[in-house]
Amino acid sequence: MSRILTITLNPALDLTVRLGHLEPGEVNRSQAMLTHAAGKGVNVAQVLADLGHTLTVSGFLGENNQQAFNALFERRGFVDAFIRVSGDTRSNIKLAEDDGRVTDLNGPGPQVSEQARQALLDKLGQIAAGHDAVVVAGSLPQGVSPQWLRELLLRLKAMGLKVILDTSGEALKQGLSVGPWLIKPNTEELSQALGRDIGSHEAQVAAAADLQAQGVEHVVISNGAEGVNWFSRGPALQALPPKVRVASTVGAGDSLLAGMLHGLISGHSAEQTLRTATAIAAMAVTQIGFGISDAAHLATLESGVNVRALTKE
Amino acid sequence: MSRILTITLNPALDLTVRLGHLEPGEVNRSQAMLTHAAGKGVNVAQVLADLGHTLTVSGFLGENNQQAFNALFERRGFVDAFIRVSGDTRSNIKLAEDDGRVTDLNGPGPQVSEQARQALLDKLGQIAAGHDAVVVAGSLPQGVSPQWLRELLLRLKAMGLKVILDTSGEALKQGLSVGPWLIKPNTEELSQALGRDIGSHEAQVAAAADLQAQGVEHVVISNGAEGVNWFSRGPALQALPPKVRVASTVGAGDSLLAGMLHGLISGHSAEQTLRTATAIAAMAVTQIGFGISDAAHLATLESGVNVRALTKE
Repeated sequence: MSRILTITLNPALDLTVRLGHLEPGEVNRSQAMLTHAAGKGVNVAQVLADLGHTLTVSGFLGENNQQAFNALFERRGFVDAFIRVSGDTRSNIKLAEDDGRVTDLNGPGPQVSEQARQALLDKLGQIAAGHDAVVVAGSLPQGVSPQWLRELLLRLKAMGLKVILDTSGEALKQGLSVGPWLIKPNTEELSQALGRDIGSHEAQVAAAADLQAQGVEHVVISNGAEGVNWFSRGPALQALPPKVRVASTVGAGDSLLAGMLHGLISGHSAEQTLRTATAIAAMAVTQIGFGISDAAHLATLESGVNVRALTKE
Repeated sequence: MSRILTITLNPALDLTVRLGHLEPGEVNRSQAMLTHAAGKGVNVAQVLADLGHTLTVSGFLGENNQQAFNALFERRGFVDAFIRVSGDTRSNIKLAEDDGRVTDLNGPGPQVSEQARQALLDKLGQIAAGHDAVVVAGSLPQGVSPQWLRELLLRLKAMGLKVILDTSGEALKQGLSVGPWLIKPNTEELSQALGRDIGSHEAQVAAAADLQAQGVEHVVISNGAEGVNWFSRGPALQALPPKVRVASTVGAGDSLLAGMLHGLISGHSAEQTLRTATAIAAMAVTQIGFGISDAAHLATLESGVNVRALTKE
């Protein structure tokens, strides 16, 4: 088992509000309100912990509403290397009505100061080297620029760490220039970052070759139910997930990323790595949450994953 | 200055979400999300602290989301005598749109166990006696019956404490039978509890006489901008607040209660007590929050309160 560091620069406190029917302007009674510490890197860490790895979690946390995060880290035995910043971690509220309609209310995050940014770099300078891989995942908070992210990734890479990057927009564009070890965009995100359409398999093959030339060893392009394409030194592979009943797609992409890292770092075959990762993502889709709650169910899903070579090399 | 205990059996975490326009079923961006530790007894405590009193706060708090409460108690120097219960304190979410429309989403509270109820009685048995008055305010959580509230009030009264009760419905009805020292319902709440309409002044005079006969020394009937009627051993008084621009009525009733208790316990004249209390409530109305932020403004509001005798006795 490995020691893995995940960095979530812009975590979120997810609040799911269940109610019969939303009546704007009225007093609505909620049947249940559920708060979860979330954010891509925090989610990835939980799936990796389910897979038996030892986790350190880092990034920026608003000091005013950190209780759910602290409780999660303690419960899961994560080493807490988050830098606390003044203010509140952003809240993402989901109003889930009985008829399935969901209304999202996404809050602003805290402002990350120069001092906090430096504190994170100092912290990572002290602790990152002891890890087998580092996952940098999610969006950027106010005060953190794509250029700063690039500097962070360069430092981590210079420490000899395998750097996994999962972000989008300008942050992904800047991040790609560093040549992370593994990326996991969807087709739209990668098209945006590269400034060209990669909708076809041929375009993906060409894009992956370019990325590999600049140091990205693993290009994982996920498209939900349409499957995953994985370009690396070996033959490119495609995995089609089994058909499942969708409960919630929350955490599915983070589950795929965790599964890919798990297989690669554990020395599993490419085919097995992609199969298991795709099954873990499919499992997330069948749950309101995510994570590996049932090994037998996972095995069933794995056997339903269809892996095939995309290209011959 | 006095030592005052406030008991909030069903506190709430208030989350105000500011947004341009609520689009149900869509992803909405919030400009700001503000979390406040709230609940009637907690609010009353804050106003009493502004008035210079020493506070102990008690009741039941869900252990999962207590950070905002702990921070408030520490910041205000309150003695924390809350019993922690498993689960989340209820959240009350207010979606405040730019056009002034407000949508409320009120969550369920935690379930209070027999063990937690006993723990509160034990705690109060240890600490309540050292106080000059005890305020029991707000609704009842799941697991706390009006009959249990009645037992609680009887115990507090048996300890020789001045008991102030601010609740409604069956809880108020049961509580009245104990003969609290002071109550502060509005006309509708008191009508419901007594099972008869007390809309007219004559009906209020009669109701107050009945309540005084069963031990309620101070019957304060508040009706917002329409004023406050106060029935006690002396002449009944009415206070009409000054006209103010309404920013938010949150905490206005709690401010009135705190102001009444402050005047009575500090030995102020009846007229001055009611005048100041009404001004503190009016001040709350002019703010998004509440509390005594500006002594000069309070003095101006006080001079705008019209106090007159309602009856001659």
